[in-house]
Amino acid sequence: MGKIILTGDRPTGKLHIGHYVGSLRNRIKLQNAGDYDKYYIMVADAQALTDNFDNPKKIRDNVIEVVLDYLSVGIDPKKVIIFIQSEVSALSELTCYYLNLVTLSRLLRNPTVKSEIAMRGFDNTVPSGFLNYPVSQTADITAFKANCIPVGDDQLPMIEQANEIVRKFNSIYGDVLVESEALLPENEFERRVPGIDGKAKMSKSLNNAIFLADTKEEVARKVMNMYTDPNHIKVSDPGKVEGNIVFLYLDIFAKDEHFEKYLPDYKNIDELKNKYREGGLGDVTIKKFLISILEEEFAPIREKRKYYETHIDEVYKIIEEGTKKAIEDANATLREVKNAIGINYFADDNFCKEIRSKYMQG
Amino acid sequence: MGKIILTGDRPTGKLHIGHYVGSLRNRIKLQNAGDYDKYYIMVADAQALTDNFDNPKKIRDNVIEVVLDYLSVGIDPKKVIIFIQSEVSALSELTCYYLNLVTLSRLLRNPTVKSEIAMRGFDNTVPSGFLNYPVSQTADITAFKANCIPVGDDQLPMIEQANEIVRKFNSIYGDVLVESEALLPENEFERRVPGIDGKAKMSKSLNNAIFLADTKEEVARKVMNMYTDPNHIKVSDPGKVEGNIVFLYLDIFAKDEHFEKYLPDYKNIDELKNKYREGGLGDVTIKKFLISILEEEFAPIREKRKYYETHIDEVYKIIEEGTKKAIEDANATLREVKNAIGINYFADDNFCKEIRSKYMQG
Repeated sequence: MGKIILTGDRPTGKLHIGHYVGSLRNRIKLQNAGDYDKYYIMVADAQALTDNFDNPKKIRDNVIEVVLDYLSVGIDPKKVIIFIQSEVSALSELTCYYLNLVTLSRLLRNPTVKSEIAMRGFDNTVPSGFLNYPVSQTADITAFKANCIPVGDDQLPMIEQANEIVRKFNSIYGDVLVESEALLPENEFERRVPGIDGKAKMSKSLNNAIFLADTKEEVARKVMNMYTDPNHIKVSDPGKVEGNIVFLYLDIFAKDEHFEKYLPDYKNIDELKNKYREGGLGDVTIKKFLISILEEEFAPIREKRKYYETHIDEVYKIIEEGTKKAIEDANATLREVKNAIGINYFADDNFCKEIRSKYMQG
Repeated sequence: MGKIILTGDRPTGKLHIGHYVGSLRNRIKLQNAGDYDKYYIMVADAQALTDNFDNPKKIRDNVIEVVLDYLSVGIDPKKVIIFIQSEVSALSELTCYYLNLVTLSRLLRNPTVKSEIAMRGFDNTVPSGFLNYPVSQTADITAFKANCIPVGDDQLPMIEQANEIVRKFNSIYGDVLVESEALLPENEFERRVPGIDGKAKMSKSLNNAIFLADTKEEVARKVMNMYTDPNHIKVSDPGKVEGNIVFLYLDIFAKDEHFEKYLPDYKNIDELKNKYREGGLGDVTIKKFLISILEEEFAPIREKRKYYETHIDEVYKIIEEGTKKAIEDANATLREVKNAIGINYFADDNFCKEIRSKYMQG
């Protein structure tokens, strides 16, 4: 069997450049490599509800936003099936059958869930839906027989949990489900863009994100407000590169060709850093340089987003068609699963025959 | 709103006369009273899998058996919707949304589940599906807007749990779901028929049951083997009525007209008991009397069962039609639920409009 990719996002906010560097960019690379049989991107609204059940409007409002982000970064609906999780009822059915195959203690031991429960201060008041979400993820993965899951390394326990359920299912009911493998980011810079406040995590809720939907002016303003080195007061002062947010960003985004184009006095990031350390390089210069680079990378995305924002019907149709395909594929797996368990009564010719022959003999 | 009744059984074995006295007889009474809008009887195969996931054949084999039992006791498919739980996918979807509304600690506190976990020796190794089954029951009840649930008093905590979820759902998402009330058995004899070994619970697994499908000969053999009073050796010996299994059964089944018909030397159960206590009444006499009574009650049921056993296609069609209706009704509720949460995107005209107007203004 060929490669089947599944990935997605919880629609809890617009996507930001952290998502772009950490996953979206990689998804485009996968899409363009083209060495896959199927490629699904799921808007995980049902999963988002597990810890936003009391704020469903947030989910509703962001479903289309996230798809707009996908399309604007270049996800091609001709190559990728974009779909909405809650529309695929087979995923709930699979979740319910898989819940029988995993014990409470195993769920409580899942390191990812454990740290998320701690982070949200849930403890025993954790909503059961949230505690169960690794099982729901297993349903997502297996429904599409996905074997390649692009994730960060913090998500490895989820893949492990999914594969455990797959093995248990297959051992009881027969070989139906497929194990999956994590596809980890290739280098550490791909993993995480810090917030504009220097915090390790960029996130909407921390209010430290640069969104893909931000205007040119918003991006410039956010960069100009970045914290550099508090002792680097005059241009001539020597400056620190370590912990300097602008340099953290330049490390991620600046390539040699950017220097040639926007800052030809320096050949590369090392020369720039040396000059900054020495003194004689102003914060405004490095910030404007970063703004130019971000503009080059994100202006085309912003343009594309504008197009789709004014063609919502087109976006809507893309989701509708993707979802229709996802429903078909997941239903096919559900049928196999129910056949294996032996409870697909109405589609199962043997079922009626078994009973009939039982009473013929009896 | 009128009365909507939901009840059902886990298809883990043929039904026995304990089910008959404890619930089936009452269901017929409800059916014939006719003062309801809708009346559903569910074959709870998915629920049965929560603690039989490793023995799915047991469930598969008993789905039709249980329906045969329903039809043979007189459940009328023209008046009652008989359906199979696992065929109604909306139930799984509702379960998943409701799981967000109940905490782990609340589930662990459910007295019914607590004692069932202890009984099965599960502890922390309880399958999550089993722990969650009160939530799945809530889905069953609310999907059909059932407000009248015939149960034993051991099931009251389940109704309480369901109503809690209903109230929480309605308080967050708006008034969609309906609270339900337990319909308890009218008298204590209706609650429980002891096993033929005298154990409080009649059950297939204890091998102490008289099944509705048992032949006349099997019933007679089981009664003849019943334990009476070990000191009542000769007919002339005085005998004990208390703890005497035959009398336990006679208390449940014997009516005055039975005496007239089968044992005219006595007018009623009190006279019979007095004679037994005095001495001069043999065990064979009281056992034969019980056999006659059971035969009168269960022969017509057995006959009807024979008919359906040889007309399986008819049974199959009844289930198929009932299930179709149940699917429609549950889907209608699911639509309301998803509308209330705000995630019924494709059926929701406002959804597209909201986005469009957002970007018109923006």
